[in-house]
Amino acid sequence: MKWIVVVLIAVIALAGVVTYMAPASGQADGDASPIYGITIPPGYRDWKLIAVKHLTIGNKADQLRAQLGNDIAIKAFKEAKVPFPDGSIIAALHWTRVLSDNDTKVIAGQFPGAQSFVIGSAVNVQFMVKDSKKYASTGGWGFADFANGKPGDRKLHETCFPCHAPAADHDFFFTHYAA
Amino acid sequence: MKWIVVVLIAVIALAGVVTYMAPASGQADGDASPIYGITIPPGYRDWKLIAVKHLTIGNKADQLRAQLGNDIAIKAFKEAKVPFPDGSIIAALHWTRVLSDNDTKVIAGQFPGAQSFVIGSAVNVQFMVKDSKKYASTGGWGFADFANGKPGDRKLHETCFPCHAPAADHDFFFTHYAA
Repeated sequence: MKWIVVVLIAVIALAGVVTYMAPASGQADGDASPIYGITIPPGYRDWKLIAVKHLTIGNKADQLRAQLGNDIAIKAFKEAKVPFPDGSIIAALHWTRVLSDNDTKVIAGQFPGAQSFVIGSAVNVQFMVKDSKKYASTGGWGFADFANGKPGDRKLHETCFPCHAPAADHDFFFTHYAA
Repeated sequence: MKWIVVVLIAVIALAGVVTYMAPASGQADGDASPIYGITIPPGYRDWKLIAVKHLTIGNKADQLRAQLGNDIAIKAFKEAKVPFPDGSIIAALHWTRVLSDNDTKVIAGQFPGAQSFVIGSAVNVQFMVKDSKKYASTGGWGFADFANGKPGDRKLHETCFPCHAPAADHDFFFTHYAA
């Protein structure tokens, strides 16, 4: 009886890891990213903040962005330690940026000319998962891009690593921890 | 001997609470906010993300901002529950927004016209601490504004509550949780 309990606990403990690291078989199911086989890590929205950004692409995109990290990644960021250890996961949350008429009105009362931009709606969520063996051919990182909970296609995921390659000296990650 | 240990544990446990809730005596020490007597809550940088913002004030200010909450506040946000329960603390981290030449160069390779704005340096950190009895005259909230670890003056802190008053229908808090 006792060994059943032990096995069960082990299985439950492993489940947390396995769920977001489905085999990169190229035959990923509908909820995993092509090429890398990554599903959405449970609880990522509660991870700690690395930094925030604002991205514009002409008049095509205007986004407020936040980068969050799991505990392994945050520890490495705080210690300014690269390469990131296996098990590091970084989440990039992207939202549209919109002017808040309400906030602007209030703030401009005290600070004339102020404009307050806030989050409009979710655009996509991206993940980088560090596994130096599994993802050896892409700098040790697996990539995933989800919109409305669904992964983007293979063509989209083929662009991830080439875009991150210029940041090789910081283990392929651009963002710095915001002190 | 045993009771000494118990008392010591109790003192250590309380210390975490007391450090950020010094008496609002009006004689706050150098590290506590005037009027409200709030010091910087330990570990706030590791709190969970509520949302991000971008604020401009003409050419005087251009800031990327993140709002973080302690566990009590985050639970209330997720449940869309107001008023916030006592013990809720919200942190607002403000940084300068600067164009990243490096990021822009990389991203614009794939997305022509892209501009990536990142965090420059820390401007200030603000806190709202919910204690419906202690801060009854200011909507149940105490306020604090720190720059370089030092609280702003009394005049600055006199502006906190009037500015938040228009958000009375959301318990004096403007930001919505970013799903």
